[in-house]
Amino acid sequence: MLGAIEAGGTKFVCAVGDKEGNITDQIQIPTTIPEETISKVIQFFKRYDLPAIGIGSFGPIDINIQSPTYGFITSTPKTAWRDYPFVQMIQEAFEVPVGFNTDVNAAALGEAKLGAAQGLDSCLYITIGTGIGAGAVVQGRLLEGLSHPEMGHILVRRRSDDTYEGRCPYHHDCLEGLAAGPAIEERWGDKGANLINRPEVWDLEGYYIAQALMQYILILSPKKIILGGGVMHQQQVFTAVKNYLKELVNDYVILPDLSDYIVSPGLGDKAGITGSLLLAWDSLSRYEK
Amino acid sequence: MLGAIEAGGTKFVCAVGDKEGNITDQIQIPTTIPEETISKVIQFFKRYDLPAIGIGSFGPIDINIQSPTYGFITSTPKTAWRDYPFVQMIQEAFEVPVGFNTDVNAAALGEAKLGAAQGLDSCLYITIGTGIGAGAVVQGRLLEGLSHPEMGHILVRRRSDDTYEGRCPYHHDCLEGLAAGPAIEERWGDKGANLINRPEVWDLEGYYIAQALMQYILILSPKKIILGGGVMHQQQVFTAVKNYLKELVNDYVILPDLSDYIVSPGLGDKAGITGSLLLAWDSLSRYEK
Repeated sequence: MLGAIEAGGTKFVCAVGDKEGNITDQIQIPTTIPEETISKVIQFFKRYDLPAIGIGSFGPIDINIQSPTYGFITSTPKTAWRDYPFVQMIQEAFEVPVGFNTDVNAAALGEAKLGAAQGLDSCLYITIGTGIGAGAVVQGRLLEGLSHPEMGHILVRRRSDDTYEGRCPYHHDCLEGLAAGPAIEERWGDKGANLINRPEVWDLEGYYIAQALMQYILILSPKKIILGGGVMHQQQVFTAVKNYLKELVNDYVILPDLSDYIVSPGLGDKAGITGSLLLAWDSLSRYEK
Repeated sequence: MLGAIEAGGTKFVCAVGDKEGNITDQIQIPTTIPEETISKVIQFFKRYDLPAIGIGSFGPIDINIQSPTYGFITSTPKTAWRDYPFVQMIQEAFEVPVGFNTDVNAAALGEAKLGAAQGLDSCLYITIGTGIGAGAVVQGRLLEGLSHPEMGHILVRRRSDDTYEGRCPYHHDCLEGLAAGPAIEERWGDKGANLINRPEVWDLEGYYIAQALMQYILILSPKKIILGGGVMHQQQVFTAVKNYLKELVNDYVILPDLSDYIVSPGLGDKAGITGSLLLAWDSLSRYEK
Protein backbone atom coordinates (compact mmCIF):
# COMPACT_ATOMS: atom_id res chain seq x y z
CA MET A 1 0.00 0.00 0.00
CA LEU A 2 1.09 3.54 -0.82
CA GLY A 3 0.01 6.96 0.40
CA ALA A 4 -1.07 9.78 -1.93
CA ILE A 5 -1.90 13.44 -1.43
CA GLU A 6 -3.58 15.52 -4.10
CA ALA A 7 -3.07 18.98 -2.66
CA GLY A 8 -5.42 21.50 -4.23
CA GLY A 9 -6.08 25.13 -3.46
CA THR A 10 -9.57 24.35 -2.10
CA LYS A 11 -9.20 20.83 -0.77
CA PHE A 12 -6.69 18.08 -0.10
CA VAL A 13 -7.52 14.52 -1.13
CA CYS A 14 -5.57 11.86 0.77
CA ALA A 15 -5.69 8.24 -0.29
CA VAL A 16 -4.21 4.86 0.45
CA GLY A 17 -3.93 2.52 -2.50
CA ASP A 18 -1.66 0.57 -4.81
CA LYS A 19 0.28 1.32 -7.97
CA GLU A 20 -2.55 -0.03 -10.11
CA GLY A 21 -4.66 2.85 -8.84
CA ASN A 22 -6.88 0.79 -6.53
CA ILE A 23 -7.84 3.03 -3.62
CA THR A 24 -8.84 1.42 -0.33
CA ASP A 25 -9.27 4.50 1.85
CA GLN A 26 -9.70 8.16 1.05
CA ILE A 27 -10.59 11.44 2.78
CA GLN A 28 -11.02 15.09 1.83
CA ILE A 29 -9.64 17.91 3.95
CA PRO A 30 -10.34 21.61 3.32
CA THR A 31 -7.26 23.66 2.44
CA THR A 32 -7.00 26.22 5.24
CA ILE A 33 -3.61 26.94 6.84
CA PRO A 34 -0.75 24.43 6.76
CA GLU A 35 -0.78 23.76 10.54
CA GLU A 36 -4.39 22.68 10.40
CA THR A 37 -4.56 20.95 6.99
CA ILE A 38 -1.28 19.08 7.26
CA SER A 39 -1.94 17.87 10.80
CA LYS A 40 -5.16 16.27 9.53
CA VAL A 41 -3.22 14.72 6.64
CA ILE A 42 -0.71 13.25 9.07
CA GLN A 43 -3.46 12.00 11.36
CA PHE A 44 -5.07 10.16 8.41
CA PHE A 45 -1.90 8.44 7.24
CA LYS A 46 -0.75 7.56 10.79
CA ARG A 47 -3.30 4.75 10.82
CA TYR A 48 -1.27 2.98 8.12
CA ASP A 49 2.26 1.69 7.78
CA LEU A 50 3.15 3.17 4.39
CA PRO A 51 6.49 2.66 2.63
CA ALA A 52 6.17 5.85 0.54
CA ILE A 53 3.91 8.86 -0.02
CA GLY A 54 3.35 10.76 -3.27
CA ILE A 55 2.27 14.40 -3.43
CA GLY A 56 0.68 16.12 -6.42
CA SER A 57 0.52 19.72 -5.29
CA PHE A 58 -0.87 23.07 -6.35
CA GLY A 59 1.98 25.43 -7.10
CA PRO A 60 4.24 26.89 -8.11
CA ILE A 61 6.45 24.41 -6.31
CA ASP A 62 10.16 23.65 -6.34
CA ILE A 63 10.79 20.24 -7.90
CA ASN A 64 14.50 20.73 -8.54
CA ILE A 65 16.15 18.16 -6.32
CA GLN A 66 19.41 20.16 -6.35
CA SER A 67 17.72 23.26 -4.97
CA PRO A 68 17.87 24.29 -1.28
CA THR A 69 14.12 24.86 -1.42
CA TYR A 70 13.31 21.52 -3.09
CA GLY A 71 9.94 20.29 -1.85
CA PHE A 72 8.60 23.76 -1.06
CA ILE A 73 5.46 25.43 -2.28
CA THR A 74 6.96 28.71 -3.49
CA SER A 75 5.30 31.89 -4.79
CA THR A 76 1.64 30.93 -4.40
CA PRO A 77 -0.94 33.69 -3.92
CA LYS A 78 -2.19 31.63 -0.90
CA THR A 79 0.05 33.45 1.56
CA ALA A 80 -0.20 30.90 4.39
CA TRP A 81 1.37 28.33 2.09
CA ARG A 82 4.11 30.49 0.62
CA ASP A 83 7.58 28.97 1.17
CA TYR A 84 6.00 25.99 2.88
CA PRO A 85 8.39 22.97 3.10
CA PHE A 86 5.77 20.42 2.09
CA VAL A 87 8.02 17.41 1.41
CA GLN A 88 10.07 18.07 4.54
CA MET A 89 6.99 18.17 6.79
CA ILE A 90 5.68 14.86 5.44
CA GLN A 91 9.11 13.26 5.57
CA GLU A 92 9.58 14.39 9.15
CA ALA A 93 6.27 12.81 10.17
CA PHE A 94 6.72 9.47 8.38
CA GLU A 95 10.43 9.02 7.58
CA VAL A 96 9.66 7.43 4.19
CA PRO A 97 10.47 8.42 0.59
CA VAL A 98 8.19 11.19 -0.67
CA GLY A 99 7.42 11.75 -4.37
CA PHE A 100 6.67 15.35 -5.24
CA ASN A 101 5.37 17.05 -8.36
CA THR A 102 2.58 19.38 -9.49
CA ASP A 103 -1.04 18.22 -9.29
CA VAL A 104 -1.30 18.42 -13.07
CA ASN A 105 1.93 16.53 -13.69
CA ALA A 106 0.61 13.85 -11.32
CA ALA A 107 -2.63 13.72 -13.30
CA ALA A 108 -0.70 13.45 -16.58
CA LEU A 109 1.26 10.55 -15.10
CA GLY A 110 -1.94 8.85 -13.95
CA GLU A 111 -3.54 9.23 -17.38
CA ALA A 112 -0.39 7.98 -19.17
CA LYS A 113 -0.05 4.87 -17.03
CA LEU A 114 -3.63 3.97 -16.19
CA GLY A 115 -5.98 6.33 -18.03
CA ALA A 116 -6.78 7.71 -21.48
CA ALA A 117 -3.15 7.65 -22.67
CA GLN A 118 -2.37 4.17 -21.40
CA GLY A 119 0.33 2.54 -23.51
CA LEU A 120 1.59 5.87 -24.87
CA ASP A 121 4.88 7.46 -23.85
CA SER A 122 3.48 10.94 -24.34
CA CYS A 123 0.40 12.87 -23.28
CA LEU A 124 -0.75 16.27 -22.17
CA TYR A 125 -3.23 16.71 -19.31
CA ILE A 126 -4.94 20.06 -18.98
CA THR A 127 -7.33 21.04 -16.22
CA ILE A 128 -9.69 23.95 -16.71
CA GLY A 129 -11.38 24.88 -13.47
CA THR A 130 -10.66 27.48 -10.78
CA GLY A 131 -7.35 27.89 -12.57
CA ILE A 132 -5.81 26.40 -15.70
CA GLY A 133 -2.83 24.12 -15.46
CA ALA A 134 -1.21 21.40 -17.52
CA GLY A 135 1.22 18.58 -17.04
CA ALA A 136 2.88 16.44 -19.65
CA VAL A 137 4.55 13.11 -20.11
CA VAL A 138 7.29 13.36 -22.75
CA GLN A 139 9.13 10.27 -23.95
CA GLY A 140 7.91 8.39 -20.91
CA ARG A 141 8.88 10.96 -18.28
CA LEU A 142 7.16 13.87 -16.58
CA LEU A 143 8.13 17.04 -18.37
CA GLU A 144 10.63 19.03 -16.37
CA GLY A 145 13.26 21.62 -17.24
CA LEU A 146 14.36 24.67 -15.34
CA SER A 147 11.15 24.04 -13.42
CA HIS A 148 7.74 22.47 -14.05
CA PRO A 149 5.58 23.85 -16.86
CA GLU A 150 3.17 26.72 -16.19
CA MET A 151 1.12 26.24 -19.33
CA GLY A 152 -2.06 27.85 -18.00
CA HIS A 153 -0.57 31.31 -18.35
CA ILE A 154 0.31 31.28 -22.04
CA LEU A 155 -0.78 34.20 -24.19
CA VAL A 156 -3.88 33.91 -26.35
CA ARG A 157 -5.34 36.29 -28.88
CA ARG A 158 -8.40 38.03 -27.55
CA ARG A 159 -11.46 37.61 -29.74
CA SER A 160 -12.42 41.03 -31.09
CA ASP A 161 -15.91 40.91 -29.56
CA ASP A 162 -14.65 39.94 -26.10
CA THR A 163 -14.35 43.06 -23.95
CA TYR A 164 -13.75 41.24 -20.66
CA GLU A 165 -10.40 42.46 -19.38
CA GLY A 166 -9.14 39.19 -17.86
CA ARG A 167 -8.37 38.42 -14.25
CA CYS A 168 -4.85 37.03 -14.03
CA PRO A 169 -2.98 39.15 -11.46
CA TYR A 170 0.26 38.65 -13.43
CA HIS A 171 -0.81 38.80 -17.08
CA HIS A 172 -4.44 40.04 -17.12
CA ASP A 173 -5.63 38.35 -20.31
CA CYS A 174 -3.50 35.22 -20.56
CA LEU A 175 -5.32 31.89 -21.03
CA GLU A 176 -6.12 31.49 -17.34
CA GLY A 177 -7.10 35.15 -17.09
CA LEU A 178 -9.65 34.80 -19.89
CA ALA A 179 -10.82 31.19 -19.72
CA ALA A 180 -10.68 29.74 -16.18
CA GLY A 181 -13.93 29.23 -14.27
CA PRO A 182 -13.80 32.55 -12.37
CA ALA A 183 -13.28 34.43 -15.66
CA ILE A 184 -16.37 32.78 -17.13
CA GLU A 185 -18.37 33.77 -14.07
CA GLU A 186 -17.12 37.35 -14.05
CA ARG A 187 -17.55 37.87 -17.80
CA TRP A 188 -21.07 36.48 -18.03
CA GLY A 189 -22.27 37.43 -14.55
CA ASP A 190 -23.25 33.94 -13.46
CA LYS A 191 -21.70 30.61 -12.50
CA GLY A 192 -20.86 28.25 -15.37
CA ALA A 193 -23.39 25.73 -14.09
CA ASN A 194 -26.14 28.30 -14.70
CA LEU A 195 -24.96 29.12 -18.22
CA ILE A 196 -25.45 25.70 -19.77
CA ASN A 197 -28.03 26.99 -22.25
CA ARG A 198 -25.89 29.90 -23.43
CA PRO A 199 -23.95 28.42 -26.38
CA GLU A 200 -22.00 31.68 -26.88
CA VAL A 201 -20.35 31.12 -23.48
CA TRP A 202 -18.92 27.75 -24.45
CA ASP A 203 -18.10 28.79 -27.98
CA LEU A 204 -15.85 31.57 -26.68
CA GLU A 205 -14.37 29.15 -24.16
CA GLY A 206 -13.56 26.73 -26.99
CA TYR A 207 -12.04 29.59 -28.99
CA TYR A 208 -9.46 30.26 -26.28
CA ILE A 209 -8.75 26.64 -25.38
CA ALA A 210 -8.21 25.78 -29.07
CA GLN A 211 -5.55 28.49 -29.29
CA ALA A 212 -3.80 26.98 -26.30
CA LEU A 213 -3.93 23.50 -27.84
CA MET A 214 -2.49 24.89 -31.07
CA GLN A 215 0.53 26.18 -29.13
CA TYR A 216 0.92 22.99 -27.09
CA ILE A 217 0.75 20.85 -30.24
CA LEU A 218 3.28 22.91 -32.19
CA ILE A 219 5.68 23.00 -29.24
CA LEU A 220 5.26 19.57 -27.58
CA SER A 221 3.56 17.38 -30.17
CA PRO A 222 1.74 15.25 -27.54
CA LYS A 223 0.36 11.88 -28.56
CA LYS A 224 -2.89 12.44 -26.67
CA ILE A 225 -4.56 15.52 -25.21
CA ILE A 226 -6.71 15.09 -22.11
CA LEU A 227 -8.97 17.93 -21.03
CA GLY A 228 -10.21 17.74 -17.45
CA GLY A 229 -11.48 20.05 -14.73
CA GLY A 230 -14.91 21.48 -13.94
CA VAL A 231 -15.31 23.59 -17.09
CA MET A 232 -14.77 20.55 -19.31
CA HIS A 233 -17.80 18.86 -17.80
CA GLN A 234 -19.60 20.97 -20.42
CA GLN A 235 -19.31 18.59 -23.34
CA GLN A 236 -20.21 21.38 -25.77
CA VAL A 237 -16.77 22.91 -25.10
CA PHE A 238 -15.12 19.87 -26.68
CA THR A 239 -17.02 20.46 -29.92
CA ALA A 240 -16.02 24.11 -30.05
CA VAL A 241 -12.39 23.31 -29.21
CA LYS A 242 -12.11 20.77 -32.01
CA ASN A 243 -13.73 23.02 -34.61
CA TYR A 244 -11.56 26.01 -33.80
CA LEU A 245 -8.42 23.90 -33.56
CA LYS A 246 -8.98 22.44 -37.01
CA GLU A 247 -9.32 25.93 -38.42
CA LEU A 248 -6.18 27.17 -36.66
CA VAL A 249 -3.88 24.26 -37.52
CA ASN A 250 -5.17 24.35 -41.12
CA ASP A 251 -3.59 20.97 -41.89
CA TYR A 252 -0.11 22.31 -41.30
CA VAL A 253 0.61 19.37 -39.00
CA ILE A 254 -1.07 16.02 -39.43
CA LEU A 255 -3.15 15.15 -36.38
CA PRO A 256 -4.99 11.93 -35.56
CA ASP A 257 -8.78 11.95 -35.71
CA LEU A 258 -9.62 14.66 -33.17
CA SER A 259 -12.40 12.63 -31.55
CA ASP A 260 -9.74 10.17 -30.45
CA TYR A 261 -6.97 12.74 -29.91
CA ILE A 262 -8.70 15.22 -27.60
CA VAL A 263 -10.51 13.37 -24.85
CA SER A 264 -11.82 13.45 -21.30
CA PRO A 265 -9.72 11.91 -18.52
CA GLY A 266 -9.91 8.12 -18.55
CA LEU A 267 -9.65 8.20 -14.77
CA GLY A 268 -12.38 10.84 -14.40
CA ASP A 269 -11.76 12.98 -11.33
CA LYS A 270 -9.25 10.43 -10.00
CA ALA A 271 -6.40 11.29 -12.38
CA GLY A 272 -4.58 13.46 -9.83
CA ILE A 273 -4.84 11.13 -6.85
CA THR A 274 -3.99 8.09 -8.98
CA GLY A 275 -0.93 9.90 -10.34
CA SER A 276 0.07 10.77 -6.77
CA LEU A 277 0.03 7.06 -5.92
CA LEU A 278 2.35 6.55 -8.90
CA LEU A 279 4.62 9.34 -7.61
CA ALA A 280 4.83 7.42 -4.31
CA TRP A 281 5.72 4.26 -6.20
CA ASP A 282 8.38 6.10 -8.24
CA SER A 283 9.97 7.55 -5.12
CA LEU A 284 10.07 4.10 -3.57
CA SER A 285 11.71 2.57 -6.67
CA ARG A 286 14.30 5.34 -6.72
CA TYR A 287 14.94 4.89 -3.00
CA GLU A 288 15.51 1.15 -3.32
CA LYS A 289 18.09 1.55 -6.10
CA MET B 1 35.10 9.65 -38.80
CA LEU B 2 31.39 10.31 -39.30
CA GLY B 3 29.36 11.85 -42.09
CA ALA B 4 26.89 14.69 -41.58
CA ILE B 5 24.34 16.42 -43.78
CA GLU B 6 22.69 19.68 -42.82
CA ALA B 7 19.91 19.81 -45.39
CA GLY B 8 18.51 23.31 -45.73
CA GLY B 9 15.99 24.78 -48.14
CA THR B 10 18.68 26.84 -49.89
CA LYS B 11 21.80 24.77 -49.45
CA PHE B 12 23.08 21.45 -48.19
CA VAL B 13 26.20 21.37 -46.02
CA CYS B 14 28.00 18.02 -46.00
CA ALA B 15 30.80 17.35 -43.57
CA VAL B 16 33.13 14.64 -42.38
CA GLY B 17 34.18 14.88 -38.76
CA ASP B 18 34.14 13.31 -35.31
CA LYS B 19 31.74 13.28 -32.39
CA GLU B 20 33.66 16.10 -30.72
CA GLY B 21 32.58 18.31 -33.60
CA ASN B 22 35.96 18.48 -35.33
CA ILE B 23 35.33 18.78 -39.05
CA THR B 24 38.03 17.68 -41.49
CA ASP B 25 36.23 18.15 -44.79
CA GLN B 26 33.13 20.11 -45.78
CA ILE B 27 31.26 21.22 -48.90
CA GLN B 28 28.17 23.22 -49.75
CA ILE B 29 25.70 22.13 -52.41
CA PRO B 30 22.77 24.24 -53.63
CA THR B 31 19.34 22.75 -52.92
CA THR B 32 17.81 22.19 -56.33
CA ILE B 33 16.03 18.93 -57.12
CA PRO B 34 16.74 15.69 -55.22
CA GLU B 35 18.33 13.87 -58.20
CA GLU B 36 20.92 16.60 -58.59
CA THR B 37 21.55 17.61 -54.98
CA ILE B 38 21.62 14.11 -53.53
CA SER B 39 23.90 12.74 -56.25
CA LYS B 40 26.44 15.43 -55.32
CA VAL B 41 26.03 14.52 -51.65
CA ILE B 42 26.73 10.88 -52.46
CA GLN B 43 29.70 11.78 -54.63
CA PHE B 44 31.22 13.76 -51.72
CA PHE B 45 30.84 11.01 -49.14
CA LYS B 46 31.96 8.24 -51.52
CA ARG B 47 35.54 9.41 -51.02
CA TYR B 48 35.36 8.26 -47.40
CA ASP B 49 34.68 5.03 -45.62
CA LEU B 50 32.12 6.22 -43.09
CA PRO B 51 30.50 3.99 -40.45
CA ALA B 52 27.42 6.25 -40.10
CA ILE B 53 25.80 9.39 -41.50
CA GLY B 54 23.60 11.90 -39.65
CA ILE B 55 21.02 14.11 -41.33
CA GLY B 56 19.54 17.31 -39.91
CA SER B 57 16.89 18.18 -42.46
CA PHE B 58 14.45 20.93 -43.35
CA GLY B 59 10.92 19.68 -42.92
CA PRO B 60 8.37 18.70 -42.08
CA ILE B 61 9.88 15.22 -41.99
CA ASP B 62 8.74 11.87 -40.64
CA ILE B 63 10.90 10.85 -37.66
CA ASN B 64 8.56 8.18 -36.33
CA ILE B 65 10.52 4.98 -36.69
CA GLN B 66 7.28 2.93 -36.65
CA SER B 67 5.85 4.81 -39.61
CA PRO B 68 5.88 3.46 -43.20
CA THR B 69 7.15 6.87 -44.32
CA TYR B 70 9.90 7.12 -41.70
CA GLY B 71 12.84 8.99 -43.14
CA PHE B 72 10.79 10.96 -45.65
CA ILE B 73 10.56 14.68 -46.17
CA THR B 74 6.77 15.06 -46.10
CA SER B 75 4.55 18.09 -46.76
CA THR B 76 7.21 20.67 -47.69
CA PRO B 77 6.25 23.57 -49.97
CA LYS B 78 9.35 22.62 -52.02
CA THR B 79 7.41 20.30 -54.31
CA ALA B 80 10.41 18.45 -55.77
CA TRP B 81 11.23 17.23 -52.26
CA ARG B 82 7.72 16.30 -51.20
CA ASP B 83 7.50 12.64 -50.08
CA TYR B 84 11.21 12.21 -50.72
CA PRO B 85 12.65 9.09 -48.99
CA PHE B 86 15.77 10.85 -47.73
CA VAL B 87 17.05 8.23 -45.28
CA GLN B 88 16.35 5.39 -47.69
CA MET B 89 18.32 7.04 -50.52
CA ILE B 90 21.37 7.60 -48.29
CA GLN B 91 21.12 4.15 -46.80
CA GLU B 92 20.91 2.59 -50.24
CA ALA B 93 24.07 4.39 -51.34
CA PHE B 94 26.18 3.64 -48.26
CA GLU B 95 24.58 0.76 -46.36
CA VAL B 96 25.39 2.30 -42.97
CA PRO B 97 23.20 3.48 -40.07
CA VAL B 98 21.65 6.87 -40.77
CA GLY B 99 20.56 9.30 -38.02
CA PHE B 100 17.65 11.52 -38.99
CA ASN B 101 16.02 14.51 -37.38
CA THR B 102 15.09 18.11 -38.13
CA ASP B 103 17.82 20.67 -38.81
CA VAL B 104 16.79 22.56 -35.68
CA ASN B 105 16.68 19.48 -33.48
CA ALA B 106 20.18 18.67 -34.74
CA ALA B 107 21.30 22.19 -33.85
CA ALA B 108 19.74 21.87 -30.38
CA LEU B 109 21.64 18.62 -29.89
CA GLY B 110 24.89 20.24 -31.03
CA GLU B 111 24.41 23.16 -28.65
CA ALA B 112 23.50 20.87 -25.74
CA LYS B 113 26.51 18.62 -26.16
CA LEU B 114 29.19 20.97 -27.46
CA GLY B 115 27.83 24.52 -27.51
CA ALA B 116 26.14 27.12 -25.33
CA ALA B 117 24.14 24.57 -23.32
CA GLN B 118 27.02 22.18 -22.72
CA GLY B 119 26.57 20.29 -19.46
CA LEU B 120 22.81 20.93 -19.37
CA ASP B 121 20.19 18.27 -20.04
CA SER B 122 17.80 20.83 -21.49
CA CYS B 123 17.91 23.61 -24.04
CA LEU B 124 15.90 25.25 -26.76
CA TYR B 125 17.48 26.25 -30.07
CA ILE B 126 15.56 28.68 -32.27
CA THR B 127 16.61 29.85 -35.69
CA ILE B 128 15.16 33.01 -37.16
CA GLY B 129 16.04 33.37 -40.82
CA THR B 130 14.23 32.49 -44.03
CA GLY B 131 11.85 30.61 -41.77
CA ILE B 132 11.52 30.16 -38.04
CA GLY B 133 12.09 26.79 -36.45
CA ALA B 134 13.06 25.40 -33.10
CA GLY B 135 14.41 22.20 -31.65
CA ALA B 136 14.71 21.19 -28.03
CA VAL B 137 16.59 18.85 -25.77
CA VAL B 138 14.39 17.78 -22.87
CA GLN B 139 15.79 15.69 -20.02
CA GLY B 140 18.77 14.81 -22.19
CA ARG B 141 16.83 13.73 -25.28
CA LEU B 142 15.66 15.42 -28.45
CA LEU B 143 12.05 16.44 -28.00
CA GLU B 144 9.73 14.16 -29.89
CA GLY B 145 6.10 13.18 -29.54
CA LEU B 146 3.54 12.49 -32.20
CA SER B 147 6.08 14.17 -34.47
CA HIS B 148 8.84 16.76 -34.14
CA PRO B 149 7.98 20.25 -32.87
CA GLU B 150 6.89 22.95 -35.33
CA MET B 151 7.41 25.86 -32.97
CA GLY B 152 7.92 28.48 -35.65
CA HIS B 153 4.22 28.55 -36.42
CA ILE B 154 2.85 29.39 -32.99
CA LEU B 155 0.34 32.20 -32.67
CA VAL B 156 1.47 35.61 -31.50
CA ARG B 157 -0.51 38.73 -30.73
CA ARG B 158 -0.18 41.31 -33.44
CA ARG B 159 1.06 44.68 -32.20
CA SER B 160 -1.71 47.23 -32.74
CA ASP B 161 0.45 49.47 -34.94
CA ASP B 162 1.58 46.60 -37.19
CA THR B 163 -0.60 46.50 -40.29
CA TYR B 164 1.52 43.97 -42.20
CA GLU B 165 -0.74 41.01 -42.93
CA GLY B 166 1.81 38.22 -42.51
CA ARG B 167 3.05 35.75 -45.10
CA CYS B 168 2.60 32.24 -43.75
CA PRO B 169 0.62 30.30 -46.38
CA TYR B 170 -1.00 28.24 -43.60
CA HIS B 171 -1.60 30.73 -40.78
CA HIS B 172 -0.96 34.22 -42.24
CA ASP B 173 0.19 36.02 -39.11
CA CYS B 174 1.73 33.28 -36.98
CA LEU B 175 5.25 33.87 -35.63
CA GLU B 176 6.97 32.84 -38.87
CA GLY B 177 4.44 34.79 -40.92
CA LEU B 178 5.19 38.01 -39.03
CA ALA B 179 8.80 37.70 -37.94
CA ALA B 180 10.90 35.59 -40.34
CA GLY B 181 13.38 37.32 -42.65
CA PRO B 182 11.07 37.53 -45.68
CA ALA B 183 8.35 39.13 -43.50
CA ILE B 184 10.80 41.78 -42.36
CA GLU B 185 11.75 42.50 -45.95
CA GLU B 186 8.15 42.65 -47.16
CA ARG B 187 6.91 44.79 -44.25
CA TRP B 188 9.69 47.37 -44.42
CA GLY B 189 10.40 47.22 -48.15
CA ASP B 190 14.07 46.39 -47.86
CA LYS B 191 16.38 43.55 -46.85
CA GLY B 192 17.20 43.28 -43.14
CA ALA B 193 20.86 44.00 -43.84
CA ASN B 194 19.84 47.45 -45.16
CA LEU B 195 17.65 48.22 -42.13
CA ILE B 196 20.33 48.13 -39.47
CA ASN B 197 19.82 51.78 -38.57
CA ARG B 198 16.05 51.51 -38.23
CA PRO B 199 15.59 50.62 -34.54
CA GLU B 200 11.80 50.30 -34.96
CA VAL B 201 12.38 47.28 -37.22
CA TRP B 202 14.26 45.36 -34.56
CA ASP B 203 12.07 46.53 -31.74
CA LEU B 204 9.01 45.02 -33.45
CA GLU B 205 11.02 41.88 -34.18
CA GLY B 206 11.90 41.59 -30.50
CA TYR B 207 8.25 42.14 -29.60
CA TYR B 208 7.19 39.03 -31.51
CA ILE B 209 10.13 36.84 -30.55
CA ALA B 210 9.62 37.67 -26.88
CA GLN B 211 6.03 36.43 -27.11
CA ALA B 212 7.27 33.18 -28.58
CA LEU B 213 9.84 32.77 -25.81
CA MET B 214 7.12 33.42 -23.22
CA GLN B 215 5.14 30.49 -24.64
CA TYR B 216 8.16 28.22 -24.93
CA ILE B 217 9.21 28.97 -21.35
CA LEU B 218 5.75 28.37 -19.87
CA ILE B 219 5.31 25.14 -21.81
CA LEU B 220 8.83 23.63 -21.89
CA SER B 221 10.79 25.43 -19.18
CA PRO B 222 14.13 25.11 -21.03
CA LYS B 223 17.35 25.56 -19.06
CA LYS B 224 18.93 27.67 -21.80
CA ILE B 225 17.52 29.49 -24.84
CA ILE B 226 19.74 29.83 -27.91
CA LEU B 227 18.73 32.23 -30.66
CA GLY B 228 20.42 31.68 -34.00
CA GLY B 229 19.81 32.37 -37.68
CA GLY B 230 20.44 35.39 -39.88
CA VAL B 231 18.03 37.77 -38.17
CA MET B 232 19.72 37.24 -34.80
CA HIS B 233 22.98 38.57 -36.20
CA GLN B 234 21.35 41.90 -35.33
CA GLN B 235 22.43 42.10 -31.71
CA GLN B 236 19.85 44.84 -31.06
CA VAL B 237 17.13 42.19 -31.35
CA PHE B 238 18.49 40.45 -28.24
CA THR B 239 18.02 43.61 -26.20
CA ALA B 240 14.45 44.07 -27.39
CA VAL B 241 13.61 40.39 -26.80
CA LYS B 242 14.89 40.50 -23.22
CA ASN B 243 13.07 43.73 -22.37
CA TYR B 244 9.73 42.57 -23.77
CA LEU B 245 10.08 39.12 -22.23
CA LYS B 246 10.66 40.58 -18.78
CA GLU B 247 7.51 42.65 -19.14
CA LEU B 248 5.46 39.67 -20.35
CA VAL B 249 6.59 37.12 -17.76
CA ASN B 250 6.16 39.77 -15.05
CA ASP B 251 8.05 37.65 -12.50
CA TYR B 252 5.43 34.91 -12.65
CA VAL B 253 8.16 32.34 -13.17
CA ILE B 254 11.66 32.80 -11.83
CA LEU B 255 14.19 32.94 -14.65
CA PRO B 256 17.98 33.06 -14.47
CA ASP B 257 19.73 36.32 -15.38
CA LEU B 258 18.52 36.86 -18.96
CA SER B 259 21.97 37.80 -20.26
CA ASP B 260 23.07 34.28 -19.41
CA TYR B 261 19.75 32.60 -20.23
CA ILE B 262 19.11 33.88 -23.75
CA VAL B 263 22.26 33.61 -25.81
CA SER B 264 23.75 33.20 -29.30
CA PRO B 265 24.80 29.74 -30.46
CA GLY B 266 28.05 28.64 -28.86
CA LEU B 267 28.86 26.84 -32.12
CA GLY B 268 28.05 29.87 -34.28
CA ASP B 269 26.80 28.75 -37.68
CA LYS B 270 28.09 25.22 -37.06
CA ALA B 271 25.36 24.14 -34.61
CA GLY B 272 23.37 22.25 -37.24
CA ILE B 273 26.22 20.41 -38.91
CA THR B 274 27.81 19.57 -35.55
CA GLY B 275 24.49 18.21 -34.33
CA SER B 276 24.23 16.14 -37.51
CA LEU B 277 27.59 14.55 -36.67
CA LEU B 278 26.12 13.69 -33.27
CA LEU B 279 23.05 12.20 -34.96
CA ALA B 280 25.43 9.97 -36.94
CA TRP B 281 27.16 8.96 -33.71
CA ASP B 282 23.81 8.22 -32.02
CA SER B 283 22.67 6.05 -34.92
CA LEU B 284 25.93 4.13 -34.74
CA SER B 285 25.61 3.56 -30.99
CA ARG B 286 22.04 2.35 -31.42
CA TYR B 287 23.08 0.07 -34.28
CA GLU B 288 25.87 -1.54 -32.25
CA LYS B 289 23.58 -2.38 -29.33
